[in-house]
Amino acid sequence: MPRTRKLNTRERILQTSLKLFNEQGERNVTTNHIASHQGISPGNLYYHFRNKSMIVAELFGDFERRMEAFFVMPGGATLTFEDKTKYLENLLDILWQFRFLHQGLEYLLEADPELATRYRQFAQRSLRSTQSIYQAFADAGILLLSARQAETLSINVWIVLSSWMQFLSTARGIQPSLDERLLQRGIYQILVLEEGYVAPAYQQAVSALCDRFYIPLDEMPPPG
Amino acid sequence: MPRTRKLNTRERILQTSLKLFNEQGERNVTTNHIASHQGISPGNLYYHFRNKSMIVAELFGDFERRMEAFFVMPGGATLTFEDKTKYLENLLDILWQFRFLHQGLEYLLEADPELATRYRQFAQRSLRSTQSIYQAFADAGILLLSARQAETLSINVWIVLSSWMQFLSTARGIQPSLDERLLQRGIYQILVLEEGYVAPAYQQAVSALCDRFYIPLDEMPPPG
Repeated sequence: MPRTRKLNTRERILQTSLKLFNEQGERNVTTNHIASHQGISPGNLYYHFRNKSMIVAELFGDFERRMEAFFVMPGGATLTFEDKTKYLENLLDILWQFRFLHQGLEYLLEADPELATRYRQFAQRSLRSTQSIYQAFADAGILLLSARQAETLSINVWIVLSSWMQFLSTARGIQPSLDERLLQRGIYQILVLEEGYVAPAYQQAVSALCDRFYIPLDEMPPPG
Repeated sequence: MPRTRKLNTRERILQTSLKLFNEQGERNVTTNHIASHQGISPGNLYYHFRNKSMIVAELFGDFERRMEAFFVMPGGATLTFEDKTKYLENLLDILWQFRFLHQGLEYLLEADPELATRYRQFAQRSLRSTQSIYQAFADAGILLLSARQAETLSINVWIVLSSWMQFLSTARGIQPSLDERLLQRGIYQILVLEEGYVAPAYQQAVSALCDRFYIPLDEMPPPG
């Protein structure tokens, strides 16, 4: 079954690349490096991907699809804060699995204008979706916020979410393995952003939820 | 006056480097590039700085000193929110002047373990100072927050502050010149983080202050 075999090689190149990019940083990994790690010839890799940018672009597509699956509002269902934390957990997990994208993101986008445009469009869609989700919470009477506050909050959530790994690595020296408690602390940091807008009737429940996710950073692995 | 002349050359190398790093990204600029831009020989540059890391380290020192001048609590004086916005304005301005540091920060620190340690220590000191400032606001009865909330808020403020330029560039396609309104919007994003903790007696004043800093992002230069 040569067709299946070909797909598998392609898929395995992507997996190897993702692993190497995450571990060593995208800019430190060449296509030769990827081919050698996978035990195939550079020519074989070249047959599937003409250059590294094509691999990065394809991985970005995977990342984007997986992120966007979460930006669809559950139709008709009532949103709960419990749903929301599961949701944040999944988002942070995907960000972790594709963490090379947000390491040196500006350099990555600078090197590939097409990717820069795609990323910008992705960010805009994500921000609009996040804003709609907050709007739904507002409509449900769970959050009390205006459209402007929903936009502002979405931007802060986006920045904290997409920079959480960079914060841990640069300001705390924590890497490269992601302790599950660090994901939890990230979720806590985001839940707290919303705390100020919770309607009185829900404040106690939300505080309890925040408490569940709070992990003191001092208990984290010490700076290396 | 050869002594003065020598100092000037050194100073000018730093200024040229800062300009080139900011405009083209640190990793795209070599020492030869800097020397040529300044019209001196590579040997002359080498006399002052043995390699690019030394230049980066010295620029980081400048950045650090200028940032830390703001982390000293004004002794005895009562903090006002007006002081605070001036303060934030200055911080964002310094971050802008040394913006290359936060473009691809992880790569920069990965390449220089000593710088990574310095950055981490700087981040830790900054976070502690920010937390003390919030504590002072709490003691003055302006903010209502616990020590844990002050720590959480400091981390979110740190992340938004240090990632604001990256957000504009990657998610909005805004670069390389910093419109003053974009600085203002960054301050707004940070003030809003604190809004949920403002004591009732101050809420109206703080909301009015936030309004003054709010700039709709849609009025910003359109994505390129």
